[in-house]
Amino acid sequence: VTTPLHVTFAAGDCGAWRITGVSTIVGPTLPPATALCVLEGPDPAAPPNCAWSLRGVISNTRYTQRGEVDALTSRQEGLRRTQATHAALIPMRKTDAWWALAQDERRAIFEEQSHHIGIGLEYLPAVARRLHHSRELGEPFDFLTWFEFAPEHEAAFDAMLVRLRASPEWAYVDREIDIRLLRDPER
Amino acid sequence: VTTPLHVTFAAGDCGAWRITGVSTIVGPTLPPATALCVLEGPDPAAPPNCAWSLRGVISNTRYTQRGEVDALTSRQEGLRRTQATHAALIPMRKTDAWWALAQDERRAIFEEQSHHIGIGLEYLPAVARRLHHSRELGEPFDFLTWFEFAPEHEAAFDAMLVRLRASPEWAYVDREIDIRLLRDPER
Repeated sequence: VTTPLHVTFAAGDCGAWRITGVSTIVGPTLPPATALCVLEGPDPAAPPNCAWSLRGVISNTRYTQRGEVDALTSRQEGLRRTQATHAALIPMRKTDAWWALAQDERRAIFEEQSHHIGIGLEYLPAVARRLHHSRELGEPFDFLTWFEFAPEHEAAFDAMLVRLRASPEWAYVDREIDIRLLRDPER
Repeated sequence: VTTPLHVTFAAGDCGAWRITGVSTIVGPTLPPATALCVLEGPDPAAPPNCAWSLRGVISNTRYTQRGEVDALTSRQEGLRRTQATHAALIPMRKTDAWWALAQDERRAIFEEQSHHIGIGLEYLPAVARRLHHSRELGEPFDFLTWFEFAPEHEAAFDAMLVRLRASPEWAYVDREIDIRLLRDPER
């Protein structure tokens, strides 16, 4: 039996990723930090001088249907590609109103109205993505999404975010921070 | 913003509920215990002489559609009714094959094929129910479902379980324990 993978994003003054920018899109920001490490496992040791740490867990799909899973699987690539030296960590929280919706109502806003999966598909395989669920862990965010891409694809990644943030789904987002990172060439 | 409620079920030799029976339906059982307490909050103090404890979190609906939410809401009653002196705690785990299914595939098995919501509706308001999600917490079970009912409804509750366990959804259940309880009249 597979146990869902727990991941901790710990920011401070050391780590394999250098923080190059933080944009607070909506809601309160996070304390400043210069580097980030990504730790896998349920109870990782906290790194020294930790400014903040956020936890999430990789879980089953919540909205994605079989045809969409197959389309994503056929096009997406994994994390840690050599050329994907740039990354983004986007912690996000949705409103109580979102979570009070029924499953079919959330699905309709997510895909039929906002085309979240469809828009994401257009940016594969350039952008690799991993979603971590945090809401059930009692964390300050509901999701932590991690993206990796080569520097020449950062403009396309930015364009994708503009489209998603303009969608009806984003009316339910009440906290979002966009953290950009560069893989430390020394590590 | 509402944080999902964390609940711990701690079994040992004291607690507001007396354990009257344990049936291991599939998979390994749990260590013996005579009483159970239900603790709410993220990090409750462990009671003395704890034999086992299971944690879950009350989260958003995963399969229930708006019409079903409305039907359930109009008929169901809450926990802690005076006459509901009997309870059942049913920890359950599903297979990796279940979790690898896409959202629409799981929904089809859950309701269109197995009528999980529809069967449950027939036993409202006699049986009150609260679902706790455990999979994302790294727990040995995926769900902990808590039921409360008056003694004269226990036979109906048993009949409901027989129907659910005969459904296609249960082909994906690889661990299930049925723990029956009686509210301690002294507490």
